[in-house]
Parts: sequence; structure tokens; C-alpha cells
Amino acid sequence: MALLNGKVGIVGATGAVGEELIRLFEEEGLRPKELRLMASARSVGKSLKVHGKDHPLLEANHENMKGLDVALFMATSDIAKELALPAAKAGTVCIDNSSAFRMDPGVPLVIPEINPQHLEGHGNIIANPNCSTIILLMPLAPLHRTWKVRRVVVSTYQAASGAGLPAMEELKAQARDVLDGKPAVAKVFKHPLAFNLFSHDSDMADNGFNGEENKVVAESRKILGEPTLDIVPTCVRVPVLRAHTESVVATFEKAPNVEEARRILSKSPGVEV
Amino acid sequence: MALLNGKVGIVGATGAVGEELIRLFEEEGLRPKELRLMASARSVGKSLKVHGKDHPLLEANHENMKGLDVALFMATSDIAKELALPAAKAGTVCIDNSSAFRMDPGVPLVIPEINPQHLEGHGNIIANPNCSTIILLMPLAPLHRTWKVRRVVVSTYQAASGAGLPAMEELKAQARDVLDGKPAVAKVFKHPLAFNLFSHDSDMADNGFNGEENKVVAESRKILGEPTLDIVPTCVRVPVLRAHTESVVATFEKAPNVEEARRILSKSPGVEV
Repeated sequence: MALLNGKVGIVGATGAVGEELIRLFEEEGLRPKELRLMASARSVGKSLKVHGKDHPLLEANHENMKGLDVALFMATSDIAKELALPAAKAGTVCIDNSSAFRMDPGVPLVIPEINPQHLEGHGNIIANPNCSTIILLMPLAPLHRTWKVRRVVVSTYQAASGAGLPAMEELKAQARDVLDGKPAVAKVFKHPLAFNLFSHDSDMADNGFNGEENKVVAESRKILGEPTLDIVPTCVRVPVLRAHTESVVATFEKAPNVEEARRILSKSPGVEV
Repeated sequence: MALLNGKVGIVGATGAVGEELIRLFEEEGLRPKELRLMASARSVGKSLKVHGKDHPLLEANHENMKGLDVALFMATSDIAKELALPAAKAGTVCIDNSSAFRMDPGVPLVIPEINPQHLEGHGNIIANPNCSTIILLMPLAPLHRTWKVRRVVVSTYQAASGAGLPAMEELKAQARDVLDGKPAVAKVFKHPLAFNLFSHDSDMADNGFNGEENKVVAESRKILGEPTLDIVPTCVRVPVLRAHTESVVATFEKAPNVEEARRILSKSPGVEV
């Protein structure tokens, strides 16, 4: 947390995750020496209030990244790839929420509650896993440590928020149109989401799984340090605004029991039983 | 189908399933010699149009069941239990969509595309499985015949329609309220469904599964004739108006292959690949 008292940059401050992050800074009483909010060029001239004080929105570019102690990337993979490498070289710790560096063997992929030890020796870039991976591993990792997981079948129920504010606005607009007897217009997603659901909107890969499903598998294996773990994912977008849900069935090598599982999970940070 | 040309009764004609059934009679051009529509006492005096002709709504009672060749029960278990047994004894073939008789060892539980052979020797009561069971078995049964299924993990995405018209109306009213910034009021379900989801609204059983989940297991085992088949279900209600979805991962005794699976399913009635 010490880093967050210094010069902090948020790249993608106007997005759904950026918004939530600023709310967390306020909730946790984090007041960095400098808080630099960055977004796309079209946000320049606007500002956002943090702790009641106006913060101007700067363009996310190399110039504005200079001198930061830590940069929190809540933006696209392309922006992270462009800005994080030079910033990291210049000494800024870059924490990236995109998929740009997650599977890079030299970049730790970290869920703080699960594998903080992977932070050791990082080269100033730290990747944050996909939301579906985090939700899956928060309860699974502690049980894995006890009984060793052998197979996981996971089905997701993913909210519009995962695709950002425009997706949430689209869901609301579509819902109103459907209720008014009008057709739902899909622009952010390929299909209407209001009162509907579909296989996750990421591209379908050659192996028959969509991109989100392949991320869950690859990221979970990396975080758990189990490169061949058997995971069968089905990722589905559902008409919920915020908060993802997952149905998880895990098979373990050692025989688990429900009472002990509850006890382990009730002591796991970030998990509620 | 011959039976449906005779004297046909529909019990629960005003419900979501009854409505759909009447639409199917019209679509399929079914014109029984007599079509008697029955509902609760408060519908008496009203009528429904079938093939453009007004049909009065009669009260679902013993008197009005008399003389029918076939009665289609689209009502509650209680109504089925009260009316079907005496009607069956009097010679009416009762096809019941409720859970009243499904697990009765003397009553065939039938999906016409899958186990029509179980109809043989029926005692005038034939049960129709739960919607979740039908969706699961339509593709699973043909694959099971080829490779023998050993384990099934199924997660459902169940629409409001499964809980009837009032649940669908509630979802629409809640969605409008949420969009207008008002709280969602839940009456049919225990929780708001608009932009939300929850474990299926059936009662939680002692084994930790909800009623719907236990139905899927018991009914699938009965229909497939596999009384110990390993099925792990998670049943979830999602904010969709009509049409259920399921994510199914099946393990087989013999090694399956995708190409052959597609070929089998493309030839299975009622399944689209």
C-alpha cells in the first residue's frame, strides 16, 4: 500500500473499472501525494472529483506517464502494451488489468489473496487476472491447497459490466425498448442482451472455446502453478448489470468433506460462506 | 395423435404452458371433436379463442372431466393429484406436466423423442418431465446410447416462464422499476429477478440441493433407466422471459469424438446442431 501514497496514475479513469477504483480510493481513505487521472484524448478538458476535489483528465500518453511511482492500467490491452513497457523501464510499477501481459512468463499474474509470493522479483509490470479467473480461484485455491484439485467444471453467469460502461448502458436501453414492445438494438455486443443470454462475446478460438474460456484455463493454471490442470469452462453473458456469478464443480485428489470446506473457506480472505 | 382428435380436455388452459399448448393446437392444425378448456373457478364466464372460435372456460373439477378421451394437465401438482386419478380410472388418458406422478414407479415418465417405449402398459396416467430434465436429455440420451454416460455436470440458466405468467409479469414490472430508479418488488419469487439471478426458487432440500436440482437427477435417472447415474446439477433462475439454457459437461465410458457427436445429434429429433 506504501506505493499508493506516492505519485499514482490511473489509466482509463473514466471506464467502469476506473470509476470503481476511484470509489475504492475514497472508501479506503487513500490519498496519494499525486493522483493523475488519464483517459482518451476526448476526455481532456473534463475532470473527475476524488475526495471532493476536482482532478483534471489528462490524455493517456508517454508524456503524462512520466515520474509516476505506480500506474494502474484499467484500459485496453493496446494502451497497456504501448504505455506500460517504457514506464516500467523508467521505474514506474505498472499494474495492468488488461490481458496484455497476463500470459507473459516474465510477468507475475497475481491475486493478492492467493499468490502474493509471485510478486517477488517482478520487473515493474504486474498483471491482474480476468474477472472470471479471480472469482473461480478465490474459493478454489484454498481448497486446492488442502485436497489438490484434479478437475474443474465451471459455468459463468457474466454481467454486462465486464464489457464496460457502454455495455451496461446498452443493456438498460435494450431492456426499456423490449418493455416498450420495440426491438432491442445491439451495438456493443453482437446479440441483444436484454432478457437474453449468449456465449461470451469474446472471439471463438480454433479449439472450440471462446476467448474468455481460454483465458480462465490459462490464467488459472499460471496462478495455481499447475500447468496441466483440467478445467472445462463455459462462459456466458447474462442480462445482469454488475457482478458475475459462477457455478463450479471441482473434483479433488484427496477426499474432501463439506464441513471442513466451510471451515477453510470461512478463514479465506475475500470469501464469504 | 389419434387421441387428440377425440374429446380433449386442457386443465390449466390460462397458464403460460396452457397458452403455449393452445398455440400448438392451432399451429399443428389439431381440431379435436371436442376441446374442453378448464381453469380455476375465477376464470368461469370468460372464454379463449382456439382456431378463431370462442371456447368457454370451465372450472377444473370432477364433473367437467367426465367423458374425456384425453386430459392434458398443465396445472399444479395438487390439481393433478385430485383430478387425474379418478379420471384415469374412468378411462381418460391423463398426461400430466406437474411433478405429481413423475417419480411414481407405476407411471411412465416420457420424453417422446427419447423413451416412447415406456408408454407401453401405462395405466392412463403419463407424466411429463421437468423442463430442465427435457433440455438436458434431448442431446444427452442419443450420446448416452452410443458411448454410455458416466457423469454429468449441468448448470441451468432458467427463464421466468418456468414459474408461469405471473413470474414473467413480475420480471417485466421489476425491470421497468429498476430502469426508473425504483426498487424491484418481489412477490412471486423471494428475490428480485430483474438484472439479477439466484439459486432456483424451489425449496432447498436436506441434501443441500434445491428441489429443481433433485428433480433433474431423479427424473433423468428414471428416463434413461440408469438409477445410479452421477449427475451434479446447479439450477439458477436468470432474468430471461422465455426459454431455458443449460451448460452441460458429460463424461462417457467409451471415448467420444466431436465429429461423430455432431453427426449423432444432427440426426436426433428435436435437436439442432
